[in-house]
Amino acid sequence: MSEQTTTGRAPRARRSDGLRTREAILEHAARLATVEGIEGLSLARLADDVGMSKSGLFAHFGSKEELQLATVETAGRIFDEVVVAPAQAAPDGLARLTALTDGFLQHVEDGVFPGGCFFASVVAELGAHPGPVRDSALVVLANWEGLLVQALERARTAGEISSDADVHQLAFEIGGSLLLANVQFVVMAAPLPLERARRAITSRLDSVRTP
Amino acid sequence: MSEQTTTGRAPRARRSDGLRTREAILEHAARLATVEGIEGLSLARLADDVGMSKSGLFAHFGSKEELQLATVETAGRIFDEVVVAPAQAAPDGLARLTALTDGFLQHVEDGVFPGGCFFASVVAELGAHPGPVRDSALVVLANWEGLLVQALERARTAGEISSDADVHQLAFEIGGSLLLANVQFVVMAAPLPLERARRAITSRLDSVRTP
Repeated sequence: MSEQTTTGRAPRARRSDGLRTREAILEHAARLATVEGIEGLSLARLADDVGMSKSGLFAHFGSKEELQLATVETAGRIFDEVVVAPAQAAPDGLARLTALTDGFLQHVEDGVFPGGCFFASVVAELGAHPGPVRDSALVVLANWEGLLVQALERARTAGEISSDADVHQLAFEIGGSLLLANVQFVVMAAPLPLERARRAITSRLDSVRTP
Repeated sequence: MSEQTTTGRAPRARRSDGLRTREAILEHAARLATVEGIEGLSLARLADDVGMSKSGLFAHFGSKEELQLATVETAGRIFDEVVVAPAQAAPDGLARLTALTDGFLQHVEDGVFPGGCFFASVVAELGAHPGPVRDSALVVLANWEGLLVQALERARTAGEISSDADVHQLAFEIGGSLLLANVQFVVMAAPLPLERARRAITSRLDSVRTP
């Protein structure tokens, strides 16, 4: 940003620049957190990466915890845009469920976050550290699990799957395959674990599908 | 340890004390790494925790990487003692497989490591950081996966499960449930995810069991 941002000219453009800068910093922070950890996000490191002074960055976020909370929020927005929202185009029920799980595996394969799923990463890191940052990531994970359960409930109501299918148990098993595929893909950078997760989900759903 | 350890007396006892001290430090380091991260293991923090000087600890390990590698080795020994070795008492095949997975879930529930499975924790943290520490943890995970596959192969050879069962795919699905149970247990500190993993593994094995 230029010196002009401290003058009185073009206030709307300036505010928009400021918002864009803030979002660009947070998108970088979200990607970085999946590699270095969200506790590894320091204002100094981030300032260096985005070419701002530490005091300039401090003016944006105030504290490390505010930066972390804003990073979780941005990661949630990205996850929503890339995975959740596109799946809403699929009809509710098994088609929606498959759109959600395929979208999840695709965002891992595409390296939307270089260290894999942002929320898996934060919860693995902060699992034993209760606090607002962990809790904000857990809210996103609970919403995600809720989407899977909801699509399965709809599939059950619509008679796509057996009326006695345990939708919470199914969502757990699907979630387990997604999580392991995510971890293994980051390490191997090869599609085999993603393929295994797709096969696991298909065969598990086939086992409860009505004839 | 007393000043006596710098004199010439009782060398065998001294060496044994030294080994015990080293193991005690590493066991503490392994537990701590599941909460603070293995990158969060600093000689300074550890020295403080075990009541030694940083220079005394440095004499034991030389560098942070040597400390991390020794910590992974100690965690592997603990995992072997608590989970792997006891399962060898079960007959090879499905009984051995169940002993391994039950042992894994029990070590999570018992809080052998307060942040859950040591190796899941290290790989989540260092997944995108190739290097000797990550690789030493991956060797333990590969051995673990090998044990699951081997027990399933034996079950297939013995006719306990269908001759066309895909043992690598089964091991992946079982591993996914174990991993998600581990992560959720650390967050919730309640047995539900462990119960879900047991149910998932039982129903998946039932689906390939011969009549």
